[in-house]
Amino acid sequence: MTVAFIDIQRAHKRIKETIARTPLLNSPRLDAIAGRKLWIKAEPLQVTGSFKFRGACSAVSALPSEALQRGVVAYSSGNHAQGVALAAKVFGTRATIIMPHDAPANKVANTKAYGATVVHYERGVESRESIGERLAQKNGLHLIKPYDDPDVIAGQGTVGLELAEQLTDVGAQASALLCCCGGGGLSSGIAVALNALRPKITVHTVEPEGFDDTARSLTLGERVSNPTEQGSICDAIVTPIPGELTFPLLQQYTGHGFAVSDHSVLVAMKTAFDTLKVTVEPGGAVALAAALDPQNLPDEKELVVILSGGNVDEQLFQKALQIT
Amino acid sequence: MTVAFIDIQRAHKRIKETIARTPLLNSPRLDAIAGRKLWIKAEPLQVTGSFKFRGACSAVSALPSEALQRGVVAYSSGNHAQGVALAAKVFGTRATIIMPHDAPANKVANTKAYGATVVHYERGVESRESIGERLAQKNGLHLIKPYDDPDVIAGQGTVGLELAEQLTDVGAQASALLCCCGGGGLSSGIAVALNALRPKITVHTVEPEGFDDTARSLTLGERVSNPTEQGSICDAIVTPIPGELTFPLLQQYTGHGFAVSDHSVLVAMKTAFDTLKVTVEPGGAVALAAALDPQNLPDEKELVVILSGGNVDEQLFQKALQIT
Repeated sequence: MTVAFIDIQRAHKRIKETIARTPLLNSPRLDAIAGRKLWIKAEPLQVTGSFKFRGACSAVSALPSEALQRGVVAYSSGNHAQGVALAAKVFGTRATIIMPHDAPANKVANTKAYGATVVHYERGVESRESIGERLAQKNGLHLIKPYDDPDVIAGQGTVGLELAEQLTDVGAQASALLCCCGGGGLSSGIAVALNALRPKITVHTVEPEGFDDTARSLTLGERVSNPTEQGSICDAIVTPIPGELTFPLLQQYTGHGFAVSDHSVLVAMKTAFDTLKVTVEPGGAVALAAALDPQNLPDEKELVVILSGGNVDEQLFQKALQIT
Repeated sequence: MTVAFIDIQRAHKRIKETIARTPLLNSPRLDAIAGRKLWIKAEPLQVTGSFKFRGACSAVSALPSEALQRGVVAYSSGNHAQGVALAAKVFGTRATIIMPHDAPANKVANTKAYGATVVHYERGVESRESIGERLAQKNGLHLIKPYDDPDVIAGQGTVGLELAEQLTDVGAQASALLCCCGGGGLSSGIAVALNALRPKITVHTVEPEGFDDTARSLTLGERVSNPTEQGSICDAIVTPIPGELTFPLLQQYTGHGFAVSDHSVLVAMKTAFDTLKVTVEPGGAVALAAALDPQNLPDEKELVVILSGGNVDEQLFQKALQIT
């Protein structure tokens, strides 16, 4: 099971009337700070505030009508939850979302507001994966995994379809793209799309320091895990190990794996506030953080940078605004 | 001297490769909060962080080559300064910007970073208008006024050209639009454009409470001034009196004049952060504040809302994030 370019094209046909075509931004002031031209794909402006809505819409819209009648289930405490909840509503089915009992109240409220049923579990007592599979079997629900699902990867790859057109429109000459990487759904999807449409652009992944399972796995040539999932401000992109489906795609289509510090992520969030006027969450800002470090890809005079999401609470955002 | 639809079309031809075509956003969560569908035109994502770049580019690009060789001058402590500074650089001329000596350091730094020469004046001692005219005469510079200039109004009207296309693309049914109003350049430009392209949409102006010179002038049928220019958080849109050029256009083409409180503006800024992931400055958020009040235009099930700019400092933005 893998994902090919035609799968991304098919996903785009199913979802293009539902998703937002997010803008490609450029800021002369940001370019001056970065010391090079940055083309910014702004997925915080996607419906539900992150790219996850693309993959969720792709997966739900691919279901046969019998499955839509039964409903879908997903486990997530964040962006995937909100994406699946709204995608289910838009495509006429019901979503059950499995969230930790201590999930932030606003994330639970948002997920319910999109019409989903929320089922809580206790962290450390039960595994959300096993609850998801049990609920799926018991109630005949279709489980939508956050990244290891070909329809989800194809949906995230629609970012690459839009990018190829937008980069042509603005006359961009970039040969490198920086993308955050958690499970690898977004980065692998974009890489498959651009390999077909803009093969001269290399997709590079970016992770938080200490949680760079993808970078280490790419170096070692096999999937290795992170020692812990706790302790990063980039909660949205901390995953235990690269995906079974995504990793072979990343191996085939992406370049280097970068890692950035929490401090550089907060600086990137503040810089986006100052120059782009886009709210970016920590996990969504790692690619910009990497782009702002002149030691990364020093020969590249232009970079394409993915901002992946903006669902951050006021307290953490204020911490970024106060960074020096 | 007035502005007709064809002037906006001509301005668009001159500047469309330079400005950003800003997105039309929609958020189901924002719609739920508002109790109606809101189509959000996001000018904080415009180059330089506000719509002012459109008018500045329009005015500079309309100059004959002799004038471009001599340079342009503008007085502004904020968004118009940054817009003119970068427009001058892009279209190959030099800008002199007259700013108060106590202007915020970051606004002065930004204006200089775009390549402009900054001339300071003392508030209360000299008038920026007379300094501008003196510099213009002495050095043969072309003065670009912030709103009472037909090329500036035509440039701001390009927001309306884009809107007409974008509203068709999404199938919007709105018959009312809310737009912030300072000197009236943006609201009159949009109203002229939509009168030609979408005459069923009525443009309504929104101002800060206590600084509603336009609303009172529209009611009275003549230009009346505000008692003071001090004391609003919406500094970007506090002007002494409606423009000589803009007011007749507003009289002919716009509907009601609304006014909103500072508190409602801070709530609108936080709501935009939560749901749209766009940074909005106080003056740029008044139209959203009006749209969120169900007592305004209660029969309208859809509204078009202009967010006009996002150049706000960290301290004030944090105040909005802390609002309850």
